[in-house]
Amino acid sequence: MSDRYFEDYVEGSTEELGSIKVSEDEILEFATKYDPQPFHVDPPAAAAGPYGGLIASGWHTASLMMKLVVRNYLSAASSLGSPGIDELRWLKPVRPGDELRARVQVLEARPSKSKPDRGLLRSLVELRNQDDETVFTAVALNFVLRRWATAT
Amino acid sequence: MSDRYFEDYVEGSTEELGSIKVSEDEILEFATKYDPQPFHVDPPAAAAGPYGGLIASGWHTASLMMKLVVRNYLSAASSLGSPGIDELRWLKPVRPGDELRARVQVLEARPSKSKPDRGLLRSLVELRNQDDETVFTAVALNFVLRRWATAT
Repeated sequence: MSDRYFEDYVEGSTEELGSIKVSEDEILEFATKYDPQPFHVDPPAAAAGPYGGLIASGWHTASLMMKLVVRNYLSAASSLGSPGIDELRWLKPVRPGDELRARVQVLEARPSKSKPDRGLLRSLVELRNQDDETVFTAVALNFVLRRWATAT
Repeated sequence: MSDRYFEDYVEGSTEELGSIKVSEDEILEFATKYDPQPFHVDPPAAAAGPYGGLIASGWHTASLMMKLVVRNYLSAASSLGSPGIDELRWLKPVRPGDELRARVQVLEARPSKSKPDRGLLRSLVELRNQDDETVFTAVALNFVLRRWATAT
């Protein structure tokens, strides 16, 4: 992934981005810092709560998605950051021990008119768990350098 | 915030949710785990990169927003989790030393038809920095229990 540019993202193409396991320790650590709701940080309360057990903060799930996106989709040579996310959905709970694998589809690759050295990528990223249930989807926007621009 | 229910979120109302400081150490720690792009984890590379210095991962910024939302907007007594985010925008970089304050507006509070014990909240959450620049916005969805339902 070290050498990938805007021209290499083909509209309509899909890619697998690998998988990642989620541990109870990591769920507790993340949520204690950023999202300390009972069903994220307190196993007994979570067991008696709306999800019947501990679940990962949705922001933790999104961050795990990002880890796979940085590892296998974006390139340090061309990634210029993101203006945002168009739609993000937490479809199913993520629980301790789950293994999430990511898949991405390039929805749109549009050259920038105002900044000709880059383009804007719209990508649908999905996470599925070990039971093949889709737990998370997001339409991500990313600015990516064009190949010729890297010489400047 | 320990005793707040669906009925207490009034459409059109706005609230301040307090503020939080962002340190370089925390930016590096979060991004090293979840978003290790050069402008998030490598200060010299970041200084030479598109943002002219280190910036926080957008997922870190979102997680800091969530921290203030859990502290001052949602209630452990009634918060049932979230189906997603309708639109999220990273408008300005968040840099080490920034202080972010959150404000929220209740866009819509809609009783659920299929599950009468709860309602769906649509909220616009904004983060501003110490220079009063809006750095982040998101339209968040949250399921929240109705007051009468907590007796069951």
